[in-house]
Amino acid sequence: MSHIPNPAGLPGILGPFAFRPETAKPLCELAETLLRGPSSLTPGEREIIAAYVSRLNECTFCHGSHAAAARSLLKDKPGTVDAVMKDPAAAPVSDKLKALLVIAAAVQKGGRRVTDGMVKDARAHGAGDKEIHDTVLIAAAFCMYNRYVDGLATLTPPDEAYAAMGDMLAADGYLSSVPK
Amino acid sequence: MSHIPNPAGLPGILGPFAFRPETAKPLCELAETLLRGPSSLTPGEREIIAAYVSRLNECTFCHGSHAAAARSLLKDKPGTVDAVMKDPAAAPVSDKLKALLVIAAAVQKGGRRVTDGMVKDARAHGAGDKEIHDTVLIAAAFCMYNRYVDGLATLTPPDEAYAAMGDMLAADGYLSSVPK
Repeated sequence: MSHIPNPAGLPGILGPFAFRPETAKPLCELAETLLRGPSSLTPGEREIIAAYVSRLNECTFCHGSHAAAARSLLKDKPGTVDAVMKDPAAAPVSDKLKALLVIAAAVQKGGRRVTDGMVKDARAHGAGDKEIHDTVLIAAAFCMYNRYVDGLATLTPPDEAYAAMGDMLAADGYLSSVPK
Repeated sequence: MSHIPNPAGLPGILGPFAFRPETAKPLCELAETLLRGPSSLTPGEREIIAAYVSRLNECTFCHGSHAAAARSLLKDKPGTVDAVMKDPAAAPVSDKLKALLVIAAAVQKGGRRVTDGMVKDARAHGAGDKEIHDTVLIAAAFCMYNRYVDGLATLTPPDEAYAAMGDMLAADGYLSSVPK
């Protein structure tokens, strides 16, 4: 049972968003800027980073919803998302994204785990300053969202609920999650 | 050396804030709402939670600046902050804050580490829903800020720089850190 009231039975992060709209606003604006704002990484690539970090943090709700959003955004390559979750190094994604996923996995363990070599490797595969910055902040932000969702023992919906959530996140982004 | 450009030589999180003002805005608004907004926890108590989580994450910049902010806000009890960092259970703070620090330490390890027993104990010492919510989110947010600061290898100023930073954060809060 959730550690704070959730009278409407909302799934995952939407429970604490309804409980505390003042913090929901910057949390949603951060997600929108990072995952949907102007970037040389596609929204699908950014959702893959978010889903991958959420899986490393064992957050069922965030992994389920962001993997579903990535699948919805990458309709032409349906197997890509699951391949990354299984083994990023062997997945059919660019070498640049693979190098950024190495940085994201280091951030998940702790900020000091990111090495000069990891950053050099990402640059060698074409990553620029903004892509490196955004990868670190997406990974760091999901270390927050994941802890927020699980630290409050929010409601985890069944597996079959995520595909529709993913389509909604792919179509509408994150600002529509701010409580009115 | 920082992984992204920092031409003005700004300390800690201010480097990436200047590099990417679009994300600085929600990051500062979140900190302001959590650490300075209306709450039954004092700003000093909330800065103690932030500094404690930053110490657990071994983030020198965030620990230094938020411990200094807490010291500035708790002028009448100067030794409190260092006592909490050394051993929260033995520190001269309320049993409620001690119980909330146990929750914060669990969140630092991972969201699933927060137990019903920890929440029950915090409630038994007078913590309400909003205090439990905010403790989880402050701890989760500092797991993000700490990773952002260290994952980009930002500039760590010398020890003597933090007292002035703490006084500024105590007086002005976080919205003044958003790049113009």
